[in-house]
Formats: sequence, structure tokens, C-alpha cells
Amino acid sequence: MNFSNLPLGVFDSGIGGLTVVKEIFQQLPNEKIIYFGDTARVPYGTKSKETVTRFSLEIVHFLQKKQVKLIIVACNTASAYALDELKNKFKKIPIIGVIEPGTRAALEKTSTGKIGLIGTEGTIRSKTYERTFKKLNLGKSSIKVFSHPCPLFVPLVEEGWLTKEVTYRIAEEYLSPLKKEKIDVLLLGCTHYPLLKTVIHKVVGEEVTIIDSASETVKEVKRLLEEKNLLRENRISPRHLFYVSDAPEKFQSLSKHFLGSDYKKIAPIHLKSF
Amino acid sequence: MNFSNLPLGVFDSGIGGLTVVKEIFQQLPNEKIIYFGDTARVPYGTKSKETVTRFSLEIVHFLQKKQVKLIIVACNTASAYALDELKNKFKKIPIIGVIEPGTRAALEKTSTGKIGLIGTEGTIRSKTYERTFKKLNLGKSSIKVFSHPCPLFVPLVEEGWLTKEVTYRIAEEYLSPLKKEKIDVLLLGCTHYPLLKTVIHKVVGEEVTIIDSASETVKEVKRLLEEKNLLRENRISPRHLFYVSDAPEKFQSLSKHFLGSDYKKIAPIHLKSF
Repeated sequence: MNFSNLPLGVFDSGIGGLTVVKEIFQQLPNEKIIYFGDTARVPYGTKSKETVTRFSLEIVHFLQKKQVKLIIVACNTASAYALDELKNKFKKIPIIGVIEPGTRAALEKTSTGKIGLIGTEGTIRSKTYERTFKKLNLGKSSIKVFSHPCPLFVPLVEEGWLTKEVTYRIAEEYLSPLKKEKIDVLLLGCTHYPLLKTVIHKVVGEEVTIIDSASETVKEVKRLLEEKNLLRENRISPRHLFYVSDAPEKFQSLSKHFLGSDYKKIAPIHLKSF
Repeated sequence: MNFSNLPLGVFDSGIGGLTVVKEIFQQLPNEKIIYFGDTARVPYGTKSKETVTRFSLEIVHFLQKKQVKLIIVACNTASAYALDELKNKFKKIPIIGVIEPGTRAALEKTSTGKIGLIGTEGTIRSKTYERTFKKLNLGKSSIKVFSHPCPLFVPLVEEGWLTKEVTYRIAEEYLSPLKKEKIDVLLLGCTHYPLLKTVIHKVVGEEVTIIDSASETVKEVKRLLEEKNLLRENRISPRHLFYVSDAPEKFQSLSKHFLGSDYKKIAPIHLKSF
């Protein structure tokens, strides 16, 4: 069997993981994607480690049955809470989260060592990023991470209020404590947040480098596929599959925000068993 | 078997249904409650009719097995989307939603016939309130309903931002179109919204009567229990059971916002099978 021809599995609590899909379209245009968005149970960011881990195990089990060659956990909360357990339970398949790639990029970009981190309640509470910064920062000068949960950012994105006055106000409320610490890098620890980049930049200042983990994660996936000789080389343009656990209409219409004109590649399939 | 001694079943997508529980504590202090909060899958307001109906059927099945004498659907979205199907599938047990009682109260209170209605995306999209207004308004003068979905209100309540400046701004955004229509009654079509009453009153003006369906719903339950001779008369103070599908800590801590000092009556039990 030619494993390289198998699809990449990608999952998220809902639609946020499409920021990762967009990067795959750009960096790995030959790859086939099987996406799962848990839109019936979204969001994960406000829920417990136990529940998020249970949901993630169910989804990886589903993707494994679909015969994917690699799985990307395109959700920060699931990566923060469940990645270790997923790797333990599914040893035969490489599973990549969004936290290590984002952390690595933040470490590369900071000059002052003062890094801001925003994410869901769950991601911040888990302290997974802090542990990852410690793990990856071997030998570098001191790093200080200032973190803040932004629970209203996901509903704002889902509402499509990307640049409203109210959105600025909420961003100021969340981000001004980080600004006061004079961070030089801000890591967006949630796959929804890149859609609020304009507002976030305006609040923290143009001099702060904003990092979203989608691009970094796909770079790492590319490296890994190259290393394992698993890049798809078939020239027939790939057919993607998008599964959602709630009715597909909303996913379809919101996908425009995330994918621009690429949204046409999406025809979500409703899975009623989740 | 003495049916009157059986508990009342109450369910909601999460914690919002506690506004109904509070009313039961006040109006029916002898009654035992079995509550189910679907905190692992909250919110319902942004999800499809099909998904909300499937979840509601599962929960009513659970409550029925617990032998309750009556079920209150303490969630507007579930009432709007699923009440008819629940009544059809579970004919042996009276099931009461929050929509008819709220509608009846709004009809009683309006002088001008101009009624504002706010709720989740799902509740507003379903048009169930409009149909109920028509059904209950037989013989009365003309009624005009002006409705607006307020998808950020639930996350604001869950964030505990009950009176912040940002909350006023968001409320202005949502409510100013209703204010312009010179409504004299505003119906809160979501069990979370009573916690934002201060802000909402300030935005729409003190002259507008605000109606939340919790109080009206429990009045109707009381009437029905009296009629069927099902009021619990046992003098032993009732022991309540609160089940949640996510870990119980957050439910417990947020319950203070909803119940004041009565939150001590709550020790949520985690059900992992949902």
C-alpha cells in the first residue's frame, strides 16, 4: 500500500481548525484532507480536561478508521488537554498538536524574552504552554510568559464581529495587562484568533509580533512528511472530506471568513453519531 | 404509589435553567428537583434544530428513568425546537416549556401591542415565539413582535461580565433597533438573560416592562400540579439532585450568580455518559 497517498486527518472543536486547513492548501497543495469539526459540542475552551479528552479520543478513533497517515489536532484546547493521552492511545499514527510549533516560533521571534499568550480558559488553565516553553527553551536566555484567557473572542468570531467597536473594547479589556508588561511577541493560542488579527494588532501596537500557530504547525507537518517520505505526489488534484457533528449549513457559511475563495472546496457532511 | 412525592425534572443546555430552579425554590419550596445541565455540549442556541432535538430527547429519556412527575424544559432553544417532538414521544408525562408562559405574560402586560423579543439565534430563527403569540392572542387587538438574536449575551453571563461597560455596549448594539420601535414590553427569551436585567433595563429604559419566563413558567407548573393533585405535601425538606455532563466545578461556582445564597443546595453530579 502506498501510504503517501493517504489523507491528512485534521480536527477541531468546530470551525477554528480551518485556519490550519488554509495553511495546508498553501504549503501542501497536493495533500488530501479529512477534517472533523465537532460543531454539535463546540466550544471546548470552556469545558473540563476530562470532557475535552473524551471528545478528542472519539474523534481520533473516527479519523483512524478513515485511514489517515497523520493527524493534526488543530485545536489549542484539545492539544493542551489531550495530546499526551492521544499519543499514548494511538501509537501507530503520528499526531501533531498546535502548541509546540507555536511555542517554537515565539521563542525564535522574541528579542526581549517577554512573550504574551492568549487562549481559551482551558488552554490557559492547563499551563501546557508554560511547560512547553520550559521544555523548548533549553539553553536560551530567560523567558517570561504573560498569559490571559479571552473567552469572548471565540463567540465574537462566530458572530462575525471581526472589527466592530465592541470587539476593540473587549480586546482592550483582555490585552491591556499584557501590553503593560511590554511584550514583544504575542502568541495566538487559539485557532479562531487569527481572524481578529487586525483588532489585536491595533490594541497591542504594530511593534508586537503576532504569531499564529497554524502556519508553524503546517511547516512542521511538511518537515515530518518529507522525513518519512510520505508527501503525496499524485498529480490528480486532491478531493477533501469535511465532516461536522451538527448540521452543515452554519459551518459552510462561516467557512468563508476562514478560507476566502477556497471555501468552495468545502461541502461538509453531517455525522449524526457524535 | 404516591406520585405527588416524585420529583420535578428540569433541564437546560447548561446553567441558565437555574433561573427556573430559583423560582421553584420560591413558589414551590416543598418540591424535589432533579436537574440536568448539559454542560459538556452547551450552548444549544447556536446549533441546529436537529441536534438540539436529539440532545433533548436523550435528556428527557434520562429524566423519565429517574421517575419524575413532570418535566420542565428550562431552556428556550430546546423549547422552541424540540417541545412538540418531546410531547409526542413521551406522552405519559406532562412536559412544560418556557415559551407559552412567557408569551402569555407578555400579552397580559402590553398596552401598545408592541412587544420586543430577544433570545439565542436558534430561538429567534425558529419563529416559535411568533407562532405562539398568534396562537395565544385570539380575540385581542393587534400585536407586533420585534425580535433580535443576542448571541453574545450567554458568553457574557458565563464570563460573569454582568454590568461591565462592554456589556452595555453590546446590549446597545442588540437592543437599539427594538428601542426605536417603541416597544412597551421586552420578553427575555433565554434563561440566561435575567442576569443581565440591570444592563438591559438601562438600555431600553425603565418604562419598558421586562418579562422573564422563569417566574411565569413556575406559576403554570404550580397550577398544573394543583389541578392534577400532584403537589408534594411531605414536610420533610426535599433533597435535590443536580446532574451535569461536564465536570461539576464550573457549574457549582457559576450557580452563585443564579441562586444567591441558595447555591448551597447544589452539589452537582458528573454524568460521563452524555
